[in-house]
Amino acid sequence: MVWEITKTVKKIPKLRRPILIEGLPGIGNVGKVAVDFIIDELKAKKFYDIFSYTFPHSVFVNEKNLVSLPQISLYYKQFKNKRNDLLLLAGDIQPTDEVASYEFTEKILDIFEKFNGKEIITLGGIGLSTAPKKPKIYCTGNSKEIIKKYKNGINLDNKLYGVVGPIIGVSGLLLGMAEKRNIKAISLLAETLGHPLYLGIKGAREIIKILNKKLELKVDIKKLEKEIDEAESEMMKITKGLTDVSKQTALKKIKNKFDLSYIG
Amino acid sequence: MVWEITKTVKKIPKLRRPILIEGLPGIGNVGKVAVDFIIDELKAKKFYDIFSYTFPHSVFVNEKNLVSLPQISLYYKQFKNKRNDLLLLAGDIQPTDEVASYEFTEKILDIFEKFNGKEIITLGGIGLSTAPKKPKIYCTGNSKEIIKKYKNGINLDNKLYGVVGPIIGVSGLLLGMAEKRNIKAISLLAETLGHPLYLGIKGAREIIKILNKKLELKVDIKKLEKEIDEAESEMMKITKGLTDVSKQTALKKIKNKFDLSYIG
Amino acid sequence: MVWEITKTVKKIPKLRRPILIEGLPGIGNVGKVAVDFIIDELKAKKFYDIFSYTFPHSVFVNEKNLVSLPQISLYYKQFKNKRNDLLLLAGDIQPTDEVASYEFTEKILDIFEKFNGKEIITLGGIGLSTAPKKPKIYCTGNSKEIIKKYKNGINLDNKLYGVVGPIIGVSGLLLGMAEKRNIKAISLLAETLGHPLYLGIKGAREIIKILNKKLELKVDIKKLEKEIDEAESEMMKITKGLTDVSKQTALKKIKNKFDLSYIG
Amino acid sequence: MVWEITKTVKKIPKLRRPILIEGLPGIGNVGKVAVDFIIDELKAKKFYDIFSYTFPHSVFVNEKNLVSLPQISLYYKQFKNKRNDLLLLAGDIQPTDEVASYEFTEKILDIFEKFNGKEIITLGGIGLSTAPKKPKIYCTGNSKEIIKKYKNGINLDNKLYGVVGPIIGVSGLLLGMAEKRNIKAISLLAETLGHPLYLGIKGAREIIKILNKKLELKVDIKKLEKEIDEAESEMMKITKGLTDVSKQTALKKIKNKFDLSYIG
Repeated sequence: MVWEITKTVKKIPKLRRPILIEGLPGIGNVGKVAVDFIIDELKAKKFYDIFSYTFPHSVFVNEKNLVSLPQISLYYKQFKNKRNDLLLLAGDIQPTDEVASYEFTEKILDIFEKFNGKEIITLGGIGLSTAPKKPKIYCTGNSKEIIKKYKNGINLDNKLYGVVGPIIGVSGLLLGMAEKRNIKAISLLAETLGHPLYLGIKGAREIIKILNKKLELKVDIKKLEKEIDEAESEMMKITKGLTDVSKQTALKKIKNKFDLSYIG
Repeated sequence: MVWEITKTVKKIPKLRRPILIEGLPGIGNVGKVAVDFIIDELKAKKFYDIFSYTFPHSVFVNEKNLVSLPQISLYYKQFKNKRNDLLLLAGDIQPTDEVASYEFTEKILDIFEKFNGKEIITLGGIGLSTAPKKPKIYCTGNSKEIIKKYKNGINLDNKLYGVVGPIIGVSGLLLGMAEKRNIKAISLLAETLGHPLYLGIKGAREIIKILNKKLELKVDIKKLEKEIDEAESEMMKITKGLTDVSKQTALKKIKNKFDLSYIG
Repeated sequence: MVWEITKTVKKIPKLRRPILIEGLPGIGNVGKVAVDFIIDELKAKKFYDIFSYTFPHSVFVNEKNLVSLPQISLYYKQFKNKRNDLLLLAGDIQPTDEVASYEFTEKILDIFEKFNGKEIITLGGIGLSTAPKKPKIYCTGNSKEIIKKYKNGINLDNKLYGVVGPIIGVSGLLLGMAEKRNIKAISLLAETLGHPLYLGIKGAREIIKILNKKLELKVDIKKLEKEIDEAESEMMKITKGLTDVSKQTALKKIKNKFDLSYIG
Repeated sequence: MVWEITKTVKKIPKLRRPILIEGLPGIGNVGKVAVDFIIDELKAKKFYDIFSYTFPHSVFVNEKNLVSLPQISLYYKQFKNKRNDLLLLAGDIQPTDEVASYEFTEKILDIFEKFNGKEIITLGGIGLSTAPKKPKIYCTGNSKEIIKKYKNGINLDNKLYGVVGPIIGVSGLLLGMAEKRNIKAISLLAETLGHPLYLGIKGAREIIKILNKKLELKVDIKKLEKEIDEAESEMMKITKGLTDVSKQTALKKIKNKFDLSYIG
């Protein structure tokens, strides 16, 4: 029993051809910040917890001083007047080893297909050596059509080739493995500071702006904009010289200080 | 055959809703020192040996010049006039990789449930950059109730959030995995020097004082107090500049020199 | 489902006792450059894709800005007037861990036997501390007969013993595992600069010259010769100071700049 | 199919309660040098090859310029007038990961029991920071009886406790796992230079002297003594600054130069 997918609601809702947005921890934590914020603002509801022996063998201490196992969860958001509902994939960690990463991706695609999902958007960062003032957003995908669709009317740079190396982890594999199932998938990648403790809030904001335009999400980004400057400078100060073990804690301290309660 | 759990007594005793105390090697070896001392003082009896191919592929040379495989064991202590007997988990090592760590934790919880266990206490250290004169004890757990119960009347700091990062290994997983089975579990963590060769005896003493109060164990800590100062200074002298391979040996030398025979 | 071997053509052709030439990424990428060039020049046709969860958990971004999973493929080339057709093994990556590397080699040998293959030639590099002007070619193999056959009339140095250490990865294992099945196999190794970003084009050219002579391939090496000098100097300039993640990208940039379109 | 044990003779001989001597690569390669020399001098015959996907994924190039997969083999030696024949375990490598190391040890013990083996002697080194002029031999074991038996009349130091850390790899596991099957086993460990390229020939000589006395092997150690001084000094000169990959080659060069043909 290495993988556990647990329902956390009584009744699984019927979703209209949902679009899956993935935002797990990664470069600059851009994807995580963006998806955690969207979940918070849209009041998306958690309905699946995913757990595996291949996750880190440790527990986090949360703000109530209680422990929690590392976990990845699926959320959904139903809309009244739209063709496509949302599936949101968020979590504390990524599966670390290669086989587990592939297995996890297959399980997410299985669920996506069960809901007759429409397409997949993965979010991530492109690490720069200095924090960008106004992060550019790049995209890549597994078909010309989905790239064309998302670029239409948007200032989106699809000349990723030659800019980044391989896209590592679930954000990349979801695109590659989706293609094998004829599922269209795109990745939006924001420039950010390539530091493991950095919270790429500005990059996340730029990504959410695009999602707002293309998916008409109406996510209010004011809260995100308000605290950006303070948070970003504070972040580097506090986390300077920290060991890996203290990362999670440091990030949560910053989050509390700046009332960034949307960060999971 | 990767896991072997072997009975080491003829007859498995009936235990009254035992409380499990875990103390495997970890930060400052606080948990190991505490549990090994309790086992010695209460004359707890070993009744299960646990062995696995996922343990380090090496043998230790013991004081009789004989080899022994790395091993983790379960001990029990029956009391005459108490509601709860004790289960004690002690050993030389921890399973190292992530999957093995989860599997081990499940096996311990299986045994705990077989004995209709009441609750679980895991012991560990919080690594500081200097050795604390009077180590503070922190706690975290998997439910408010057990934290409240153990804090009652005790100088125990439950503001762990923001103090430590993830709790790594069996001490953490026992809490997280116990919650899935509705088993209450708490972790007591003593400040100690964050050095792999350090024996956090002072931290262990503070933890045993708390366990004495809450569980009425009547463990005599005089022996522990007597040697603390000498042992701690000697420890750093002897072990300075040692390689990893020599750790076990160095620790046992110190143990012998100071008659700390309770350290396994 | 850890290994997937997928047909990419409608009809698997009948091949006349094919010779398998392997050229996966490795020291100086000599084997990869040589085999990718041969495939391009001979217009060899891809007929099997091999994929595994043990491959890196990432996707590459290609020149069309689309992602692709890491992949290894088998190509074939049928000749009109020759006794032996060709099987060519090319790819982006090698299986990384030891067990996966053995399993992959067995699968290739299974396919080779299905086509009643004649013999196997693996290609690789010998890393020097400076880039050689005129790389020497060494050979080793799993039988005296195949070495004698390939050395006949060729300036080929078979005094490899004492020159290199173990041959690591698929180039080595194909020889060792083929011997267990009584399949003759030889390895041609070209001197090259032992730098992970170096494209050993000169070494690849020397290897192709030998293959042209022994197998009468009639591969036109002019294109390869034309760009060698520029490419090699540029390579070190561009790739200086790059991280591992940027390798693939850097190599592809060079390839484009110098129109080395044969490099996959 | 991860483990392959292959008969290399037509008829497996009947052995009289054989004693198993193990000497795989390890600290100072003391065990390997000793067992390879004994096999050569006693003209012991190879009868089992052991191979596994968990061995390194590479091939060695041997002195005939042919490749060979990493391999471990069992040899036997029948005596005319003795109670106990010999089983000898020799090879190029050790299984590297922990689970594979345990599995390998179990397989060796299975074979040992099939031949109704009497006892096991593992050979190894204790790494010092300078090469010892006259290496001392230490011993440890899994029972007092076997230690007493081997110490009787011999200048053997059994105060290993506090001298070494854990005994890592097959030399250690054979002792620990043998105990579970009630098989007596001892380890003889010679002081040597703790350098990965060092050939602990002097240490091997001291061990063979002890085996000659206790088992009346009549191994002629003159050849070993003749070349010791030259070989040892040369060794450090040649191998200085070599990378890991070149080890095997460097050691074989030295072996050839000094006619140490007994080293496999």
